[in-house]
Amino acid sequence: MINKRNGWQVLAQTKKQGILDAIPQKWRMPNPLPPPSELRDCTGLYIQQYLTSREVEITEADAVSITAKTTVGAWSAVEVTEAFCHRAALAHQMVNCLHEIFFEEALRTARELDAYFATHKKPMGPLHGLPISLKDQFHVKGVETTMGYVGWIGTFEGKPDDPNARSFESELVKELRSLGAVLFCKTSVPTTLMAGETANNIIGYTWNPKNRHLSSGGSSGGEGALIALRGSPAGFGTDIGGSIRVPAAFNGIFGLRPSAGRLPYEGAANSMDGQNTILSVVGPMATTARSLKLLVKAVLQQEPWNHDPLVLELPWRSSVEEQIQNFTSGDHSQLTFAIMRHDEVVVPHPPIKRALHSIEEMLREKGHQVIDWCPPSHQIAHAIAKETFELDGGQDVHTHLASSGEPQLPQCFVAKTTHMKAAQIAALNIRKRRYQKTYLDYWNSTSKLTRNGRPVDAIICPTAPHAAVIPGCFRHVGYTSFVNVLDYTSVVIPVTHANEQIDQLENIGRGHDSNAHWEYDPLVYDGAPVGLQLIGRRLEEEKTLCLADYISNSLSEVSLAARTS
Amino acid sequence: MINKRNGWQVLAQTKKQGILDAIPQKWRMPNPLPPPSELRDCTGLYIQQYLTSREVEITEADAVSITAKTTVGAWSAVEVTEAFCHRAALAHQMVNCLHEIFFEEALRTARELDAYFATHKKPMGPLHGLPISLKDQFHVKGVETTMGYVGWIGTFEGKPDDPNARSFESELVKELRSLGAVLFCKTSVPTTLMAGETANNIIGYTWNPKNRHLSSGGSSGGEGALIALRGSPAGFGTDIGGSIRVPAAFNGIFGLRPSAGRLPYEGAANSMDGQNTILSVVGPMATTARSLKLLVKAVLQQEPWNHDPLVLELPWRSSVEEQIQNFTSGDHSQLTFAIMRHDEVVVPHPPIKRALHSIEEMLREKGHQVIDWCPPSHQIAHAIAKETFELDGGQDVHTHLASSGEPQLPQCFVAKTTHMKAAQIAALNIRKRRYQKTYLDYWNSTSKLTRNGRPVDAIICPTAPHAAVIPGCFRHVGYTSFVNVLDYTSVVIPVTHANEQIDQLENIGRGHDSNAHWEYDPLVYDGAPVGLQLIGRRLEEEKTLCLADYISNSLSEVSLAARTS
Repeated sequence: MINKRNGWQVLAQTKKQGILDAIPQKWRMPNPLPPPSELRDCTGLYIQQYLTSREVEITEADAVSITAKTTVGAWSAVEVTEAFCHRAALAHQMVNCLHEIFFEEALRTARELDAYFATHKKPMGPLHGLPISLKDQFHVKGVETTMGYVGWIGTFEGKPDDPNARSFESELVKELRSLGAVLFCKTSVPTTLMAGETANNIIGYTWNPKNRHLSSGGSSGGEGALIALRGSPAGFGTDIGGSIRVPAAFNGIFGLRPSAGRLPYEGAANSMDGQNTILSVVGPMATTARSLKLLVKAVLQQEPWNHDPLVLELPWRSSVEEQIQNFTSGDHSQLTFAIMRHDEVVVPHPPIKRALHSIEEMLREKGHQVIDWCPPSHQIAHAIAKETFELDGGQDVHTHLASSGEPQLPQCFVAKTTHMKAAQIAALNIRKRRYQKTYLDYWNSTSKLTRNGRPVDAIICPTAPHAAVIPGCFRHVGYTSFVNVLDYTSVVIPVTHANEQIDQLENIGRGHDSNAHWEYDPLVYDGAPVGLQLIGRRLEEEKTLCLADYISNSLSEVSLAARTS
Repeated sequence: MINKRNGWQVLAQTKKQGILDAIPQKWRMPNPLPPPSELRDCTGLYIQQYLTSREVEITEADAVSITAKTTVGAWSAVEVTEAFCHRAALAHQMVNCLHEIFFEEALRTARELDAYFATHKKPMGPLHGLPISLKDQFHVKGVETTMGYVGWIGTFEGKPDDPNARSFESELVKELRSLGAVLFCKTSVPTTLMAGETANNIIGYTWNPKNRHLSSGGSSGGEGALIALRGSPAGFGTDIGGSIRVPAAFNGIFGLRPSAGRLPYEGAANSMDGQNTILSVVGPMATTARSLKLLVKAVLQQEPWNHDPLVLELPWRSSVEEQIQNFTSGDHSQLTFAIMRHDEVVVPHPPIKRALHSIEEMLREKGHQVIDWCPPSHQIAHAIAKETFELDGGQDVHTHLASSGEPQLPQCFVAKTTHMKAAQIAALNIRKRRYQKTYLDYWNSTSKLTRNGRPVDAIICPTAPHAAVIPGCFRHVGYTSFVNVLDYTSVVIPVTHANEQIDQLENIGRGHDSNAHWEYDPLVYDGAPVGLQLIGRRLEEEKTLCLADYISNSLSEVSLAARTS
């Protein structure tokens, strides 16, 4: 047994080394990366130099393109898996984004899938041969789940000698296997999960691959960084305050925060499990919006409501998908969007403002009506979320920290506060419900402002006041957490990148949040991705995903036109 | 202001007299009812003697028959409303079941509806001209909501000088008005709502009209008694542990406990509001299963999810209805039922056992497969429900009692217990989720036992271990509360009545629950209705209502055949 006082470092170091050791020799990088001052962006051409052109072709295809090949036998599961394992190995060595590596097991699965296809002349399921990465909250047979806690090493969720260790699988994992997916790695999280950056005492800090000065976001930061490097075509994270959307936005990829009860959380590890004022939810992250749709449709095909008691019996509603497609391909006046430029708490940085402007311009040019979103105070939502996250006064987190004796990291700091009682929680739940009601009434009231007489179809707003953040400077989670309070559906769409030439501080008016302005530095931020949220009502996953696909395609057309004109 | 020490009696007495005074002179009963020893059952012929044959015709029609007439102008809303007001006035004088009487307002609404029909030649909505009663948790303009608390008299939910008093309306109330329903009275509840009998310090005890020795059940006991006397064709109650189903069973009527999130609770008063481990739900009660269906379909037509943030966007699923109709009209082997005869906690009394036997026999004769239900321990569910109801240590209830100084009634006793903290509530929520998962897995596992290879379609089980209970003897809520823990859908179907000739104590084997046996008295129970639960999975309201309709019709056929043969 390890002595607590100094033992946690040994345990953490051994685990960290074990992760690196799981990378085959042939995929080890000969030299460490140059410092960020010399190499800001390690995506694209930089990482490609270590890959064959065939590996680049495979790994830069999105999940829809990949499954279009693997489900008809055009690409073998083994070749696809091997390419992503190679690229994920590089990604980890570049930005420190993996907690568990199980490439051998993945290749074994891939061989079985290829054999299945050879025998049956058909795929195992819609995700046949698709590698999928998982945030380190999901239990996968054969490997650990540490969730960044040193005290969880060698245990099952902190419980030593539990037979579930390395053998139990979360419900989502079982369903992905049935769908033909190939699991190959688990990705890094911040200790406690309650952070907008990813760092823990086991692997350290997960950096942003598009701008290595900056954070990959959190808490699904490992997913964000890995997918941005195309070390995985798609993965699953979780989101209780922004943990899917923040890393999606920071890394320039797509992410969906569905409403609670849509996708299965059953059997996954969690922080403050059992807190049910705001439920953490599972959602996909990927390189295209259509990939998110593919994953959601596939999981719903497995009828997760028959295996997770908290999932609602809501199959994918194709009728909604068709309706939105009619609107986007036909009369554009049928769709109205609302834009929230500022939550009246923290004013966004120049790159975010520019992204909002460009999406608005595109929508207006397409003939859509765009109105301003002037909702009930987001201060209220922010306070509700904050109180919810502190209900147990830090007891859960501090118990797990104490089990190894590891210290708290500043980025993931959870204070010891007052432990709330039932009547206080009930009062909080009532405040939350009243806020939801007021917000719903406001949304309905926009029918008076739209030309088609229907309430707005979706809201567009920042994911954070800044692009990928300078380490230690993540402060305001309010742009995402209000969605969790309302239990709305939100998709993050990559829109642009911070540009030191354009995004100057003097371009924004000063507000009451001078700190946020002070933290904006055009030079440091240059190249950081900017993603915006597209928000639909509760359980409107079909609608929101279809609109996200439409908007991102439209943005690509615009920028293509700009480049070619 | 009233002095607290002796003032609450004055306040309560004045309120009680005010309810009686709201009954027009012409509808007052000349003499009080004879004692129960001389007049056990005041339904049917007894109450009919005070009504015209036309009033009997109208009030003994079910909600479907009534709306079939009122929505085409065959019956006027005024005539229907007046008939029900008259019968409700008699009902209250017989069994003490109303908290608020607003017949004048109801007749004004009815006149408006008749005028609407005359002008537009079409009904206002699918419930045009249908009188609907409401449990005294729903706020209706013009009258109070006391929920049985003396301290709430003259206030809004206990808050004095609140502008919402007598002016605010609950969401369901608004929707019922839009659908053309006529609201005319609010029905009695036990103080605290957490009781299986209905009694409070304002109006006293609500008796069972089918057997006046016995309780009307609770907490929607006023609804149960009123509808059993046909003083209302249909109404709405709420259910957190059995509060719709217990009074439905005790009074021989139908009641639906839908899953949480199906029908709007928004803007209704509640006990321990904000407790969200087990949510109280709104559901209809009526004289036929098809009436429940009518009410649910009608409310869903109003798209309550656009006005109540906790309601799910789940319109009535006609496809499910059609599928069940195909099964019931076609190949009966397509439907399998499971019967739970005993929850391994309290053995049911002889009348309940006989009811289970007769439903089983009917199903087998129809060609359905019937299997035994041997679920995960219901002791666990019972403990989870009990702990949930005690989370705040009685704080909410005792605050409202203290506001007037009224004493606790033994039937509604809420102890002052330990006030639970967030971490304990989280642990309880995890236990609940695990129990739900184990139960779901068990339900799925029945596919191995059915001839059609599908899991059983529904469970049939007692609603309580006894028929309508002897006052003070309601103890075991476990037969209903496990449904709330699981968030399943449950419909109560009236099956038979206790019969002193057949239902003898020696007919049941002795178990470990000698108290319950001791409390069975064939003579006292004679004539008490027996209703059983038909339970479907979470949010399976369409399926469960259709099956309930089918089963109750089949039971009627059997008893008709028995009478005519």
